[in-house]
Amino acid sequence: MPQPARRVGTAIVGLGGAVATTAVAGLELLRLGAVGADGLPLAGVTVGGRSLEEATGLAGYDDLVVGGWDLDASDLYKAAEQHGVLDARQLQQAEPLLSGITPWPAAGDADFCRNVTGGNVVLAEGRRAQVDAVRADLRRFREEQQLDGLVLLNLASTERWPDPAAACLQTPEAFEAGLDADDRAITPSMVYAYAAIVEGVGYANFTPSLSADVPALVQLAERHAVPIAGKDGKTGQTMMKTVLAPAFRSRALTVEGWYSANILGNRDGLALDDPASLESKLQTKGKVLDSILGYPVEDHVVRIDYYRPRGDQKEAWDAIDLIGFLGQRMQIKVDFQCRDSILAAPLAVEIVRLVDLAQQRGEGGVQRHLGWFFKAPITADGSTPEHALHRQESVLMDWLTSGADRTGSDADPASR
Amino acid sequence: MPQPARRVGTAIVGLGGAVATTAVAGLELLRLGAVGADGLPLAGVTVGGRSLEEATGLAGYDDLVVGGWDLDASDLYKAAEQHGVLDARQLQQAEPLLSGITPWPAAGDADFCRNVTGGNVVLAEGRRAQVDAVRADLRRFREEQQLDGLVLLNLASTERWPDPAAACLQTPEAFEAGLDADDRAITPSMVYAYAAIVEGVGYANFTPSLSADVPALVQLAERHAVPIAGKDGKTGQTMMKTVLAPAFRSRALTVEGWYSANILGNRDGLALDDPASLESKLQTKGKVLDSILGYPVEDHVVRIDYYRPRGDQKEAWDAIDLIGFLGQRMQIKVDFQCRDSILAAPLAVEIVRLVDLAQQRGEGGVQRHLGWFFKAPITADGSTPEHALHRQESVLMDWLTSGADRTGSDADPASR
Amino acid sequence: MPQPARRVGTAIVGLGGAVATTAVAGLELLRLGAVGADGLPLAGVTVGGRSLEEATGLAGYDDLVVGGWDLDASDLYKAAEQHGVLDARQLQQAEPLLSGITPWPAAGDADFCRNVTGGNVVLAEGRRAQVDAVRADLRRFREEQQLDGLVLLNLASTERWPDPAAACLQTPEAFEAGLDADDRAITPSMVYAYAAIVEGVGYANFTPSLSADVPALVQLAERHAVPIAGKDGKTGQTMMKTVLAPAFRSRALTVEGWYSANILGNRDGLALDDPASLESKLQTKGKVLDSILGYPVEDHVVRIDYYRPRGDQKEAWDAIDLIGFLGQRMQIKVDFQCRDSILAAPLAVEIVRLVDLAQQRGEGGVQRHLGWFFKAPITADGSTPEHALHRQESVLMDWLTSGADRTGSDADPASR
Amino acid sequence: MPQPARRVGTAIVGLGGAVATTAVAGLELLRLGAVGADGLPLAGVTVGGRSLEEATGLAGYDDLVVGGWDLDASDLYKAAEQHGVLDARQLQQAEPLLSGITPWPAAGDADFCRNVTGGNVVLAEGRRAQVDAVRADLRRFREEQQLDGLVLLNLASTERWPDPAAACLQTPEAFEAGLDADDRAITPSMVYAYAAIVEGVGYANFTPSLSADVPALVQLAERHAVPIAGKDGKTGQTMMKTVLAPAFRSRALTVEGWYSANILGNRDGLALDDPASLESKLQTKGKVLDSILGYPVEDHVVRIDYYRPRGDQKEAWDAIDLIGFLGQRMQIKVDFQCRDSILAAPLAVEIVRLVDLAQQRGEGGVQRHLGWFFKAPITADGSTPEHALHRQESVLMDWLTSGADRTGSDADPASR
Repeated sequence: MPQPARRVGTAIVGLGGAVATTAVAGLELLRLGAVGADGLPLAGVTVGGRSLEEATGLAGYDDLVVGGWDLDASDLYKAAEQHGVLDARQLQQAEPLLSGITPWPAAGDADFCRNVTGGNVVLAEGRRAQVDAVRADLRRFREEQQLDGLVLLNLASTERWPDPAAACLQTPEAFEAGLDADDRAITPSMVYAYAAIVEGVGYANFTPSLSADVPALVQLAERHAVPIAGKDGKTGQTMMKTVLAPAFRSRALTVEGWYSANILGNRDGLALDDPASLESKLQTKGKVLDSILGYPVEDHVVRIDYYRPRGDQKEAWDAIDLIGFLGQRMQIKVDFQCRDSILAAPLAVEIVRLVDLAQQRGEGGVQRHLGWFFKAPITADGSTPEHALHRQESVLMDWLTSGADRTGSDADPASR
Repeated sequence: MPQPARRVGTAIVGLGGAVATTAVAGLELLRLGAVGADGLPLAGVTVGGRSLEEATGLAGYDDLVVGGWDLDASDLYKAAEQHGVLDARQLQQAEPLLSGITPWPAAGDADFCRNVTGGNVVLAEGRRAQVDAVRADLRRFREEQQLDGLVLLNLASTERWPDPAAACLQTPEAFEAGLDADDRAITPSMVYAYAAIVEGVGYANFTPSLSADVPALVQLAERHAVPIAGKDGKTGQTMMKTVLAPAFRSRALTVEGWYSANILGNRDGLALDDPASLESKLQTKGKVLDSILGYPVEDHVVRIDYYRPRGDQKEAWDAIDLIGFLGQRMQIKVDFQCRDSILAAPLAVEIVRLVDLAQQRGEGGVQRHLGWFFKAPITADGSTPEHALHRQESVLMDWLTSGADRTGSDADPASR
Repeated sequence: MPQPARRVGTAIVGLGGAVATTAVAGLELLRLGAVGADGLPLAGVTVGGRSLEEATGLAGYDDLVVGGWDLDASDLYKAAEQHGVLDARQLQQAEPLLSGITPWPAAGDADFCRNVTGGNVVLAEGRRAQVDAVRADLRRFREEQQLDGLVLLNLASTERWPDPAAACLQTPEAFEAGLDADDRAITPSMVYAYAAIVEGVGYANFTPSLSADVPALVQLAERHAVPIAGKDGKTGQTMMKTVLAPAFRSRALTVEGWYSANILGNRDGLALDDPASLESKLQTKGKVLDSILGYPVEDHVVRIDYYRPRGDQKEAWDAIDLIGFLGQRMQIKVDFQCRDSILAAPLAVEIVRLVDLAQQRGEGGVQRHLGWFFKAPITADGSTPEHALHRQESVLMDWLTSGADRTGSDADPASR
Repeated sequence: MPQPARRVGTAIVGLGGAVATTAVAGLELLRLGAVGADGLPLAGVTVGGRSLEEATGLAGYDDLVVGGWDLDASDLYKAAEQHGVLDARQLQQAEPLLSGITPWPAAGDADFCRNVTGGNVVLAEGRRAQVDAVRADLRRFREEQQLDGLVLLNLASTERWPDPAAACLQTPEAFEAGLDADDRAITPSMVYAYAAIVEGVGYANFTPSLSADVPALVQLAERHAVPIAGKDGKTGQTMMKTVLAPAFRSRALTVEGWYSANILGNRDGLALDDPASLESKLQTKGKVLDSILGYPVEDHVVRIDYYRPRGDQKEAWDAIDLIGFLGQRMQIKVDFQCRDSILAAPLAVEIVRLVDLAQQRGEGGVQRHLGWFFKAPITADGSTPEHALHRQESVLMDWLTSGADRTGSDADPASR
């Protein structure tokens, strides 16, 4: 007997962005049967012969209800049209839904993300007032939509990092005081994360912003038993790194150097054209190699450049220098001509479903089993996270099946 | 207390080839401390805090004693000089050893490998007589070198495949009769494999030749409790495929097409310039994708071209077409500028150590846990082998540790 | 005072193909002002301050009137839709014109191009009857459309080459006899070329087919003072070769080897999947390097593979091995992700205008100054043609301006 | 009758650098017959059937006599060994010569090139005193070596640019006053250039440093009738740009964007790791595209990164976005795995021979016909120089032959 549908609210920061509009349109196109499940890692996965949704209570794609904030007040149809990710027919098919969704006023701060601004700003002075506004939005969304679950998903452009050692970021109490004092170490995405946690709403950070990855918010999430996940969706070049580096280690090929160039021309790229935001991104991209390989790669260089001709069609070029038997050198070049939002949107959707499932299971705090999705997985205790993609996949599948209602076999992505 | 050294004979078919001479020189340079362990996957791996060698009885690199056959009678120094794999200093350091090793006359057959010929041929008429000559070589080698273990390693150039359905390849009895009748379905590498098995010598086939991967020889190996392993060392492009394809599946990116070009200019490349030999190679390269992905990739094209300017410096270019979310297309290009023998030689060395360990453990027949080394792992029952590199690694490490003399922890390649 | 418009008929063999439909649609989109002149080399070129059209009498893009033959009777809208070259909006804009054009029945022969067939075949038995049918088509086209000029343009799929030394291809007289005898050395494209010449219609061969590049037809064109041009449009990889090779020579970098892989998935690619047609293509691609460099490149390998995922989006990958100062080696890789028809169509359009101009000027025979357009320029006397792109451009511009009605300066593509 | 040998002094700034040591060693290896003329563009060029040297009086490679300055006092053998450009055998063959050459103390200034320093500094306080020291070196060199000609070649690491509008750089008189006042707008390379000019010694600047490309020194060179040439040798990526861009223009393919990444790990790379020096380099690399194409490429991004694993083996990756017919997009990627010094050294050698020839011909001032060698050719009047490689070659060949003693045909690089 199928379970009754569960309505899961998805409140998105950066609702008008390329990733968010692609996700919203994609869910609609799935509902309409206009596209298949390509790119959705949990679609079609079975556990003991039953679908994941049946076996675990995971919300279906159709169960997601979307709302959210953006500094730009344009409706999602206008926004999606501008991003140029959907093709003409897809845009047309999703128009009825998209044109009906308008972002709520957002709590932005130009100081933290200089290149992305807009006029759709919440009229609230100071961080405490912004928190109150976000909480009110969440409550309203939950009531109006009669939601069974609710997850706040951060898809905003990358913020500049504050000093992670700032006093107000170390304990929940200090954070509360910091909100009242309007402490500048508290960034906009932390305002959203805090609001979610105290409202009992799961929080997932798909961006490189520091956000909930500070002791104050991690502890707060544990206290409130609210699941939090992050940070920085692992989509293109870094995903490839966490696939290739384990193989080089497996074959004992020493990585002498790894040069990574990235060019992209969407709003995220523009945000990263601000050196302060770029710094945040490089933080989250930089560490995966050494951790997987077990030794420091001294010549690991990562470049990200804004380059308009591509729009959302990001390109990542890697030049890898390897040392093999007899100390002899080899090279690998990888050129990934990917699409930023096409890779990111389905992962963001899956994260929402999984954070909601954790909420159903009553598992609060840092969701370590979601490391598979992130470039810089949060670890509650500051330890080094697992970065190898295939090991992260095992961890996720184990978590999924550990709570499955089933007899017999394991979750089998190979069943897809 | 360290175990007493074990002398493990390594009888190589194609001893004068690029892979073999690189392996022999590499072992010598390791002994001399002139090179590090780059490229040797089992070097430095620990089990429960002890080295693999201590914990499992695996022979050390220093324990290997090399001999073998080649159609070219040149000593290994001359051969290595010609292959151009070792740099000038390495060649000089290895000269004292290399110049003292001369290949034994080989059992070749120009009909099976048209582009690689030579005059150092065993004077034996017919397959049965060739078998007897190879067996005599093995016995002599074992006695003269006072060997504790002996493995026959096929590193010869690729042979044309016979019809795998030929009657004489189906049972040990039919094979015996085929030998007596000098049946043309029995290839030179089968002569070596048969001789090894009946002499109780482990057999590993690093080439794409069909060799022991026929029911007759698999059954024979089981009867004699002799370990056999193969086929076709997984070094460059195919290794990368078995790393990338699992990731694409993990992320639900559909592989629409995969175009693979290979250029190489060494003796193996020349052998593959013969369409019949090339066919064997394409056989072993072709199937990994569909098996890992779980669906047929209709546009999987593999090209191998002989291109002299590179010599041993093989280049593999892959153009991969992916379909992601919303059915949208992405591309990845991978250009692997590798070195054929530098990648192959250390794997060949490890295989010899592992086949010898299986012999010590009394485990005969097909060594399925060695699939990690091969493009087309033999499966005794004709079932589809595991191809994903990371899963193959787990299987190998489990096998290694299952027989380990230890308390506690797992084999940990990460300890390297 | 602007010249009165000149109506120039363009009778295309292969009218339903990707290049032809792109050319026809492109001319219409230009007329509508829906696209700019990107890709049209002679657009906007000035001579002495005046447009090329004014200064030389070159027909304008608007002056071209299109008709032609195809084995597939579909109208051009259906054909263009299938080729997938035009985007959705362009297809819609060109629909009124395209849907009104239906190819005339063609003179095909499956023996010469096995992978492209169709039912829209001229009902004529034997080569002489086919000639008569083509001549009738040309006369009808000229009259019905009240044409001032007429050019026959071959854009059909690549034919297998006949033996160029066949007796009937050596003199006009032998060719006439061959037509009567239905000699199999006379290919379909020769039937078209012959018909054009005897009708006084200029002939241009954009394909690798041998076609008019035989003594019989060259001499016939001279006798009839009809301009002929060809062969094989120089669009992607070969164009790049004729740009890069002169630079390598200029810098005294020796080309040790040049490996070229091509993948494409359109109808032309399918035609080339037939080894006989492929052979024709390789003939025309192979010779440019040695001729430009002045020495034979022994390791010049060209691969062309049919690979469906790309459709018309051809990809050419070149791996070039160079030797520089002190004999040291360097490499260049070029990956050209081009669009076959987008590159070819505008060149085909320019050729028609230039052949018509030659007709106006009364210059018959081989148009050597059009070598800039072709991979294998015809030379009347069998001598080696100029292949370097920049020198070919100079020759073309000199020819254009030599007949210009002007005072002062040279043709200046830089004025574009 | 062969002309008597001409002894041409080559005084090099940066004599211990990779380019200089490669040039010096290369000349010696040529003398010894140990290497061929690969990479030397004027080797073997004939004019009217005679060698360039015979026809024009151009000095032979054997006629060059080398000396120079470096901040590092190591002899050239030690320096060359460290650079790792020569292979082991070449290093050994050139050792007798190289170990006998020790650089003279140099006039450096850490303020202008922060990452390359050394102790071999001329003991002279102030710019005027440095000038005097350099002039004394030149006079001594000329006398001791009994030179017929003398050229000062700047191969030092890239300096930070001063403000080109600084008053002291505008006229020879202001420059003189600036020297006396030790004006900080006068850079070390200007000290060398000035010293050369007033000593009647030709000056060539192979680096991106501003150096003689200021009105003061250009006018001074004209007054003294001393040839000057520069700036920034056009070797790898920029050379390719000036080959490809003319072709794109020729085919009317619009360049929408051009992204260029460079990685290199030699001393030049280290110098460019200082942002001030990098800025000089980007200045000279940036302008070629717009000038050749005739329109501004808004998205032209050039990155240069220091990346140690490569040493002198520079890699340049270009991602080019093109717009063709119907406004449709195409891409080209070029990966040039070149060798910085292998490309640069032979060009530097040819420049010296050509500047000496200009001196013989009495042609002082800016040598515009040498633009073929440079990324940012100096133009006396500040006009835009020609950048297209093939047109630069024509200009050079015309200049060479204009003064040739010959009957008949043109200089023919194709004769090489």
